[in-house]
Amino acid sequence: MPVGMASTFGTLFRISTWGESHGGGVGVVIDGCPPRLPLSEADIQPDLDRRRPGQSDIVTPRKESDTCTILSGVFRGLTLGTPISIMVRNSDARPDAYREMETHFRPSHADFTYQAKYGVRNWEGGGRSSARETIGRVAAAAVAKKVLSLVHPGLEILAWVSAVHDITSLVDAGTVGREDIEANPVRCPDPLAAAAMTDRIKAARAAGDSVGGVIEGLVRGCPPGLGEPVFDRLEADLAKAMLSLPATKGFEVGSGFAGACMTGSEHNDPYRMEAGHVRTVGNRSGGVQGGISNGEPITFRVAFKPTATISQCQATVTAAGEDSTLAARGRHDPCVLPRAVPIVEAMTALVLCDHALRQRALDCLPR
Amino acid sequence: MPVGMASTFGTLFRISTWGESHGGGVGVVIDGCPPRLPLSEADIQPDLDRRRPGQSDIVTPRKESDTCTILSGVFRGLTLGTPISIMVRNSDARPDAYREMETHFRPSHADFTYQAKYGVRNWEGGGRSSARETIGRVAAAAVAKKVLSLVHPGLEILAWVSAVHDITSLVDAGTVGREDIEANPVRCPDPLAAAAMTDRIKAARAAGDSVGGVIEGLVRGCPPGLGEPVFDRLEADLAKAMLSLPATKGFEVGSGFAGACMTGSEHNDPYRMEAGHVRTVGNRSGGVQGGISNGEPITFRVAFKPTATISQCQATVTAAGEDSTLAARGRHDPCVLPRAVPIVEAMTALVLCDHALRQRALDCLPR
Amino acid sequence: MPVGMASTFGTLFRISTWGESHGGGVGVVIDGCPPRLPLSEADIQPDLDRRRPGQSDIVTPRKESDTCTILSGVFRGLTLGTPISIMVRNSDARPDAYREMETHFRPSHADFTYQAKYGVRNWEGGGRSSARETIGRVAAAAVAKKVLSLVHPGLEILAWVSAVHDITSLVDAGTVGREDIEANPVRCPDPLAAAAMTDRIKAARAAGDSVGGVIEGLVRGCPPGLGEPVFDRLEADLAKAMLSLPATKGFEVGSGFAGACMTGSEHNDPYRMEAGHVRTVGNRSGGVQGGISNGEPITFRVAFKPTATISQCQATVTAAGEDSTLAARGRHDPCVLPRAVPIVEAMTALVLCDHALRQRALDCLPR
Amino acid sequence: MPVGMASTFGTLFRISTWGESHGGGVGVVIDGCPPRLPLSEADIQPDLDRRRPGQSDIVTPRKESDTCTILSGVFRGLTLGTPISIMVRNSDARPDAYREMETHFRPSHADFTYQAKYGVRNWEGGGRSSARETIGRVAAAAVAKKVLSLVHPGLEILAWVSAVHDITSLVDAGTVGREDIEANPVRCPDPLAAAAMTDRIKAARAAGDSVGGVIEGLVRGCPPGLGEPVFDRLEADLAKAMLSLPATKGFEVGSGFAGACMTGSEHNDPYRMEAGHVRTVGNRSGGVQGGISNGEPITFRVAFKPTATISQCQATVTAAGEDSTLAARGRHDPCVLPRAVPIVEAMTALVLCDHALRQRALDCLPR
Repeated sequence: MPVGMASTFGTLFRISTWGESHGGGVGVVIDGCPPRLPLSEADIQPDLDRRRPGQSDIVTPRKESDTCTILSGVFRGLTLGTPISIMVRNSDARPDAYREMETHFRPSHADFTYQAKYGVRNWEGGGRSSARETIGRVAAAAVAKKVLSLVHPGLEILAWVSAVHDITSLVDAGTVGREDIEANPVRCPDPLAAAAMTDRIKAARAAGDSVGGVIEGLVRGCPPGLGEPVFDRLEADLAKAMLSLPATKGFEVGSGFAGACMTGSEHNDPYRMEAGHVRTVGNRSGGVQGGISNGEPITFRVAFKPTATISQCQATVTAAGEDSTLAARGRHDPCVLPRAVPIVEAMTALVLCDHALRQRALDCLPR
Repeated sequence: MPVGMASTFGTLFRISTWGESHGGGVGVVIDGCPPRLPLSEADIQPDLDRRRPGQSDIVTPRKESDTCTILSGVFRGLTLGTPISIMVRNSDARPDAYREMETHFRPSHADFTYQAKYGVRNWEGGGRSSARETIGRVAAAAVAKKVLSLVHPGLEILAWVSAVHDITSLVDAGTVGREDIEANPVRCPDPLAAAAMTDRIKAARAAGDSVGGVIEGLVRGCPPGLGEPVFDRLEADLAKAMLSLPATKGFEVGSGFAGACMTGSEHNDPYRMEAGHVRTVGNRSGGVQGGISNGEPITFRVAFKPTATISQCQATVTAAGEDSTLAARGRHDPCVLPRAVPIVEAMTALVLCDHALRQRALDCLPR
Repeated sequence: MPVGMASTFGTLFRISTWGESHGGGVGVVIDGCPPRLPLSEADIQPDLDRRRPGQSDIVTPRKESDTCTILSGVFRGLTLGTPISIMVRNSDARPDAYREMETHFRPSHADFTYQAKYGVRNWEGGGRSSARETIGRVAAAAVAKKVLSLVHPGLEILAWVSAVHDITSLVDAGTVGREDIEANPVRCPDPLAAAAMTDRIKAARAAGDSVGGVIEGLVRGCPPGLGEPVFDRLEADLAKAMLSLPATKGFEVGSGFAGACMTGSEHNDPYRMEAGHVRTVGNRSGGVQGGISNGEPITFRVAFKPTATISQCQATVTAAGEDSTLAARGRHDPCVLPRAVPIVEAMTALVLCDHALRQRALDCLPR
Repeated sequence: MPVGMASTFGTLFRISTWGESHGGGVGVVIDGCPPRLPLSEADIQPDLDRRRPGQSDIVTPRKESDTCTILSGVFRGLTLGTPISIMVRNSDARPDAYREMETHFRPSHADFTYQAKYGVRNWEGGGRSSARETIGRVAAAAVAKKVLSLVHPGLEILAWVSAVHDITSLVDAGTVGREDIEANPVRCPDPLAAAAMTDRIKAARAAGDSVGGVIEGLVRGCPPGLGEPVFDRLEADLAKAMLSLPATKGFEVGSGFAGACMTGSEHNDPYRMEAGHVRTVGNRSGGVQGGISNGEPITFRVAFKPTATISQCQATVTAAGEDSTLAARGRHDPCVLPRAVPIVEAMTALVLCDHALRQRALDCLPR
C-alpha cells in the first residue's frame, strides 16, 4: 500500500513526514484527504498530547508542548481536498547534550547506519531517526480517524501496553476501552500489571538502563473487504506500518507465532451465521483471511526492543574508526512503550483509512 | 517500498504478478530490470523447481512441471532494460475437486473474504489466493538474485525451516549452507529435526489435518546502507514482503519478540573495529539499525499457520448464508513450509535488489 | 497520474505493457480493474482490429491477426478484481528485413537512443520502440471503456485524423460520430479530405517517403470534477498519455497554441445556466479549467511526425561509429495516423477511467 | 514519471507542494534528494525572486518578499538525504478583494471546477489554483538544479518568452544566454520584440484585459540516455510537467505541430560522427528520439492562454446557480509569461533531475 517513497506512506490517503529531532521542527503533508471534512487543530492536539514527552514521570522529561498548526488545506473549518500541511516547532532542543554523538556511535542506534548510508548525519538528537519524527504520523492519523469515523462509523482503534520487560498483563480484548488504557501513565489496562510495569521502568531508569515490551492493537467494527491482495494484504500493510516505527522488532497478527505450533483443525476459525452475517467461532485469524478483513476484530501485537540510548557505559567505536566507550547523556525514555501506544494507533488508522478509500474506488460497480 | 498497487511490488525493481490457480496460467512482468544482464529460462527454472508441487512425498501431489517461458525483455541472452514477461501455464488443474467450494466457504481460507470484497470469486482452486500465485514472485526473484550477484557479489540469501508444529531445530546460522538445507525434503538443515518434522507432516496428512511452523531467513554479505527510513526501512519492507505471503501470521527481525523481554544493556550490540570495518559484538539487531543494514547478517523469522484446507469435517456456512459443514477435497500441502522456503528467499531477494538500486540512485554525489 | 514506472500507466486503473515487436508477443497486465465487469475477448478484439496492420492499402502490409487471449482475472465472464493478463502473439515477424539495423541507426528512430541508454537493443523490428507495443494499451483501454460505460454511462470518446501533411479537414465536432470516422481507411470524417489524404499517403509510399499529420480527440459527456490538481491535472495526464505514443511531437487542449494569440476577453468562456447546469458559451477551455473537467466537451489535438523509417537513402552512422548511409527495408506505415486513431482513443480512455475511479475515492463524504 | 499523487511529482527526486494563495503560506517537501549536497536558502532565493510578484511594472503589484526558510533536511550546510521542507509565508493576502468570488465564478478560471469537484473551495485568491502554488516547485527545482550541476556538470536549462499575443521574436537558440533573457522584464532575449511585448502587456492591462503567449524551453548539454519508455518518455514527462502549470494550453517538442506537415525525408535528422560522438544534422527531433535524449539540445514550446481574471465585465453565473456578471478586482498579471519563465525552467529541472537519478539506478551493470 505504501508508495515507494522513503518518507511517504499510503496510496490514496498519503502522508509525507519531514523533520529532524533538532531542527526547525517536524511536520507532515497529507495528500488525498477527502474534501468537506470538518477539521481544526483541536482534532489533532489530543493525540499529539498523548505522545508528547514530559507527560508523566516514566517518560523523557524533554519539554515540548508539541502544539500543531495547520498551514494549508483547510478553509473555514472544512478540508478543501488539497494538501493539508501540519507543523510542530521544536522548542526544547539541547544539542549540547548530544555532542559526544558527533564522534561516537551509540550501540544499536541509527548513528552508524545513517553515517554509512548517507555519508552525513544530524548527530544532534538522532535527527530523523528520532521518535520525534512520529509527530507527523500522529497528526496525520488524527485526520485519518476523522475520515474513518464518517466512512465507517462503527470502527474503533485501540492499542495498549500488554507487556513491559517480563511483566505481562491480563486484558479482556472484548471489553477493554480507551478509558481503561488511559487510566495510568503506562497505558496498560491491567492495573496490577501497570503498577509493576511502572516500577520496572523506574528501576531501569535508575540503573541507567532501559526496557522493552509489547503493544497490542485492536480494531473493532472493521467491515469485511478491506485489504488488497496479493501484496497489499491488510496484515502486510499493518506489518510494514509497525516495523516502520523506531525500536520495533516484530509483528504478529491473530495467532501469530503461537499459531505456528497448532494443527489446522485447532487453528481454523469455523464459520457460523449470526443475525444474517457470516461470523467466526474464535478469532485465530485475527480478523484477516487471505489478506482481507473478515469483519471480526483485528488483533495484532508489536514487539519493541529496549531503548538503545542508555547512560550505562558501553563499548563502541568513533566516527574516526577507533574503539572507544560511550555513556550517553541526553533525555531519553527508559521505555518507549507508553508513548508508543498512540503511535501504534496512528499507524493503524493510516492503514485502514487508506484501504477504506481504495476499496471504495475498487467497488464501484453494482453488486 | 512497494508501490501502492495491489499486485505490484517494488520501487525500482518492480514486479507485477498475475494469474489464478485454475486459469490460463500464472506469470509476472518485471519492470526496471537493468539492461545487459545475462538471462535465460535456465536461470529461473531451478528456483521454480524448488517451489513446485509434487517434488516430494510431503507436499501436494498436484502435477505441474511449472516450466517457465520468457516472453519479452531478453534478446540474444541479455536483458534489454525493457519489461521481462515470464509465464507458466497451468496444466493439472482439476476444478471438479473444488466444486463444493462454489457453495461452501473453507474456514480460515480466503473464500469468504474474497466473496465479501469482490462480490465474485474464482472458486476453482482458490483462484488468486492460492500459493500458486507465488510462482511469479519466485521467477522474478531469480532475476533479482542475478542482479544482486553482480551489484553486490558477496551477498547470499538463505532460508530454512526452523520449526514445524512443536518440533524445533538447532542450526548454526554462522555456517549453514544451501546444501545443508536442500539435503532433505523438509528443508531443515538439522537432520534429526528434519526427520521428526517429516513424520509429523505425514501424521498430519494421515489425520486429514495440517501443521504450521517457522521459517528462518538469513542474508550474509549485505553491505551497510540499504533501507530507506522512515517508512521504507529495510525490516519494514521485509515484514511487508513476508506478511504478503499466504498463511503467514508473524515476522521478527533479530531479537524479535524475545528482545522485548530484555534490558537495553543486554540487548545493545556494542561496536568494535575489525579489519578497518565497524562491526558489532552480537547481533540482536539482526543486521538492521534505524531501518538500515549495518553490514552484519540480516536475520529474521516468519510464522506460518497450518494449512487452512483440511479434509476433516468442519463447521462452516454456505454462500447462500446457511450453517453447514465442509470436508475439503483437492490436493493440498499438509504443511506449506518446505515449499515456502524458496518463496521466503524470493521475497528477500526482491526487497534487497530494490533497495540496492534505490541506494545506488540516492548515493550519487561524491563522498 | 501515472505511477513512476517506465512501463506502467495509471494510479487506480493501472496497466503494465510488455513485449517487443519481434519476440514471443506483446501484452498487458491490468491491475485495479473493478470486479464484476462482464468481459471477454470479444470486448477487446474490435479495437485491436482497428489498430491492426494490413487492414487497408494505406498501412503496413505486415500480416498479424492480433488475436488476443485473456489469461487471468476473468471467471465465467466476469472480472474478478484481480490482475487481468492479456496477450497477443507475434506471428509475421521477419527479422531478416531488419538485419542492416543491427549495424545502422535509422535517422530519427529510437535505434541510437536505445543503444545509448541501455547499451543493448533488440534491433529486429524496433523492439520495444515499435508501435506494436501499443497493442497492450489498446487492449487495456477496451476494458477501461467498459468500466466507463457503467460508471459514467453518457461518456463518449472519439478521435479522428484531422490533417495529413498539408491536407486539412472540415469536421463539425458537435455532430461527428464513430461511423463517420470509420467510413474510410484514413479515419478522417471529411470525405473529400479523406480522399486527398489517401492519395497523399500513397504518393509518399511510392516515393519511399512518409507523411505526418494531426489527430483530433473529443470526449463528450464527461462529468465535471475529473482531474487532480496540481500535478495530475486532466490535461496534464492527457498530454503525457499522448506524448508517450511513438511519433508524437505536440499536444494542444482547447484553444491550444492559437489561444496564446488571444486576449482574455476574447478567450474566456462566459458561463450561463442551462437547464439547471452551469454551462459555458464557447469552449476555448477545451472542457478543462484549472486542471478539472467542467462538463463541456473535452477537445484536444495531437501532432504526429512523419514515420522515421523510409526507404529513401539517408545519411547515418553505424553502431561501430562510422559515417554511412541507410535505405530501410521492412514493412512500414507511410503514415501512422489512420492506425493511431484507436490508440489516441485508448490513451484517452485510460486517463479518464483512472480519474473517474480517483474522483470516486476522493469524493467519499456527504455533500 | 510522476507518482500518481495529486500534489506529488517525480519518482526518485520527488516533490510534494502544499499551500493556498491566501492561507498560512506555501511550501514543498522534497523526498529523495541525494545527501551531501551543499545547500542553503541562498541557493533557492534567486529563483524565487525571478518568479516573485511586484518585480516589475508589467506584473501583479502584490507585495510578497517570498522569503524561503529551509525547515529540515539540511545540517550544517549539507543535505542529509532526508526530506527537505521549504516554506514561504504569505504576507500580502487581501481576501477582501476576492469577496465577490465567493458567490461568482470567474469565467475560464478554476472557481467553478474546484466547486464541482470538491464541493468546497477557498475563494480567497484562487486558493490552490493560484500560480502562487508554483513557489514550491521553483524552490524544489533550485535544489534539483544543484543536483544536476554535480551529476551532469555541462547541463544548462534556459527558457524565455518567444511570443506575447501576436508579437513573435527572433532568437538564436544556439547562442542565447541567461543574461540575454534577464536583460528585460519580459524575459524575451530579442530586445525589439521585448519592447513591443511590454507595450502590448501594458495596453492589455490598461484595457482591463490580458494576453497570452509562448515560452520556449532549451536544455543544452543533456547526455544521451535520459527518458524511460514507454510511458515515461522524456517528452511525455516534460509535456505533463508543462501542462500541469496554470494557464497552459499546449506543448510541442522539436518540430512540433509544424513537423506534422513535413515528409519523412525532410523531417528526419541524419546522423554523422563528430569528434567520436554520434550527432545529428538538424534537430527536428528536439533532442529526443523514441522518448530518450539523444545528446542534442532539447527544445520545446509551451502555449499560455491569456490570464482568465480580467477587470472587464463578463457574463457568468453565481454559486447559487443564477446568471450574473462579474468584473474582477484583485491584483493580477495581465500576462503570466514573464513570471512563468523561471517556472518552466523549474519544471524542466525537476524532470531532468528525476530522470538522471533513474538512469543512474537502471544503468548499474558494467558496459
